[in-house]
Amino acid sequence: MTIPQFERIALIGIGLIGSSIAREVKELGLTGDLVISTRSTETLKRAEALQLGDRYTSSAAEAVKDADLVIVSVPVGASEAVAQQIAANLKRGAIVTDVGSTKASVIAQMAPHMPDHVHFIPGHPLAGTEKSGPDAGFTGLFRDRWCIFTPLPNTDQAALDKLKAFWTALGSRIDEMDPEHHDKVLAIVSHLPHIIAYNIVGTADDLETVTESEVIKYSASGFRDFTRLAASDPTMWRDVCLHNKDAILEMLARFSEDLAYLQRAIRWGEGDKLFELFTRTRAIRRSIIQAGQDVDAPDFGRHALDTKK
Amino acid sequence: MTIPQFERIALIGIGLIGSSIAREVKELGLTGDLVISTRSTETLKRAEALQLGDRYTSSAAEAVKDADLVIVSVPVGASEAVAQQIAANLKRGAIVTDVGSTKASVIAQMAPHMPDHVHFIPGHPLAGTEKSGPDAGFTGLFRDRWCIFTPLPNTDQAALDKLKAFWTALGSRIDEMDPEHHDKVLAIVSHLPHIIAYNIVGTADDLETVTESEVIKYSASGFRDFTRLAASDPTMWRDVCLHNKDAILEMLARFSEDLAYLQRAIRWGEGDKLFELFTRTRAIRRSIIQAGQDVDAPDFGRHALDTKK
Repeated sequence: MTIPQFERIALIGIGLIGSSIAREVKELGLTGDLVISTRSTETLKRAEALQLGDRYTSSAAEAVKDADLVIVSVPVGASEAVAQQIAANLKRGAIVTDVGSTKASVIAQMAPHMPDHVHFIPGHPLAGTEKSGPDAGFTGLFRDRWCIFTPLPNTDQAALDKLKAFWTALGSRIDEMDPEHHDKVLAIVSHLPHIIAYNIVGTADDLETVTESEVIKYSASGFRDFTRLAASDPTMWRDVCLHNKDAILEMLARFSEDLAYLQRAIRWGEGDKLFELFTRTRAIRRSIIQAGQDVDAPDFGRHALDTKK
Repeated sequence: MTIPQFERIALIGIGLIGSSIAREVKELGLTGDLVISTRSTETLKRAEALQLGDRYTSSAAEAVKDADLVIVSVPVGASEAVAQQIAANLKRGAIVTDVGSTKASVIAQMAPHMPDHVHFIPGHPLAGTEKSGPDAGFTGLFRDRWCIFTPLPNTDQAALDKLKAFWTALGSRIDEMDPEHHDKVLAIVSHLPHIIAYNIVGTADDLETVTESEVIKYSASGFRDFTRLAASDPTMWRDVCLHNKDAILEMLARFSEDLAYLQRAIRWGEGDKLFELFTRTRAIRRSIIQAGQDVDAPDFGRHALDTKK
C-alpha cells in the first residue's frame, strides 16, 4: 500500500490519541501542513511547546479550512459540537473522520451536519494507554492494533481506501463493521472492563474494615492491575458510558448474572463449578497471546521494570 | 539483619512459589541441604531436571525429617493433608511455615496437627504471576513485595525473627497481622480481583452476539488485562474461594452493590456520578505508583515488549 499524502491535515483534539497521530504524521511526513486545534488554551500551548504541528488554533472552524483530512479526536460527547463548528468550513472532497470509542452515537451526532461534498468516514483505532493529554502520545501507539471503520452506506471507496492507507501507514491493522456491531464488540472488550475496573477500585476505596493504605500497600497481589484501567481519562469514559448505554447495560446484566452464579458456587462450596470456569478462562489468555494481542511475559513483563527501581 | 542459615530446608510443593523459594535458597546459600517434595511424580522429576534442590522425594513425611525449616507451598485446600503427613516426623525446634493466600483456614487445618516441639508460623508472601509450576519460578519474585505473618499467640520470638530474616534475605518486606484481618485484606486486594477477572472472561466467552475470535482480536482495548489474572492456577484459586468464603462473599456483596449504583447512573445518564468515581479512582493509581507497588510506565510498560515482536 502506498503511503498517502495530504496537503493539509487538521487535528481537532490533541490528547493521547490526537498527539500520537500528530507525532506519526510528522515522523512519516504525511503532510506539509499539520494544523492542530483544541478548545483549551493551556493544552494548545503545550502542543505548540511539544512542536506537535505546523500551526495551532483554538478555533476548530479555522483549523479545518482547506484541510484534505480532518481527524476529530475528542471525547465522544463533544462530537456534535465539533461537527457544528467545522461544517461550514470543510473543503470540498475532504475526508472527515474521528477516533471515538462509540460509533452509532458519533454518527448520529456528526452525520446530520456533514455537507454532501465531504467524505465522512467514522473510525476507531483500538489503541491507548491509561495516560492522557498531549504529553502522553507517542509514535508506535497504533502499531499492530486494529483500526475499525464503520462506513456509512454509499461511502466513496477511493476516500475510504485513502483513509485506510493513512492508518496502515501508522501501523494499524484495518477492519470494517457496522456501527451497531462495533458498539456491542467494544462494550465487551473495552467498555465493560473499564467500568468493572473503576467499580472495584471504588469499592476498595470505600471499605471501612480495610484501610486505603493497606489496599495500596498490598495492591501487587492483583488489585493494582485494575487501577491502571481505572486511571483512564474520566471525561472520555463518562462520555463512553453515556453514549453506548444500551450495549453496556446489556453486557453489565450478563456480567452480574454470571457473577451471581459464581457467588452462589462460592457460598455453597461448589468447587467443581469454580474449577471449570477457572480452567476455561486460561485458554482465552493463550489465544490472545497467540493472536499477538498481548505479551507472554509473566506479569505483563513488568517484573523487569519493577526490579529496576 | 544477618542472613539466616539452616542445616536442612524442606520445601513441600514446588510450584511457582516453591520453586522461586528454591532458586533463592540456592542462590543465597541459605542451606547445605535442600529437600524438595511434591506429590506429582512428573513435577518432582521436572524439579530435579531443573536442579532446584539437593534431594527429591514424593513423600512429604520423608522430606521433613531433620529439617530445620519446612515451607509448605501447596494449594490451601491441601494444607491439612500435608500437616497430617509431616507431623510425626518434624524435628524438635523446627520452624514450619506456609505461603497460603488464606490464613484462618490454613491455621485451622494445620495447627491442631503440629506437635508442641515445633514452631508453626503461618505466612503469606504477596507475590506471584499468572504462570504456575516449577518452571514458572524465578529469583527476584519476592523483591519489594510484602510477606505477611499471622503468628499464633505464644509464638517464639526467636523463631519468628529467624523466619523474618529468611524472607528479608529473599527481598521481602515484612508485616504482621491477625489471620482474620489478613483474610479480609486479601479478599479485597487479591481474591476479589481474581474472581472478577475470571468472571468477566467467562462472560465474554459465553456471548452469542460477539464471537470469541472478535473478543481475542480486539482484546488490547482493555479486556486483555483481565485475562492475565484469569489465567492463574485453577486449583489454587478454587481453594482460595472455598477457604476464604466469608470475607470474599462480603466483598462480592459490596462490589455488586456499587456496580448496581454505577449501572443505574449509566441508565439514567447521570454523568456527574460517573465523573466523580472515575476521578477518584485515578488518585489511587497514583498512590500505588508512589508506594512503589506498580510501574509508572504506560500500559505496564508492555508497549516496549509489544513492539519487539
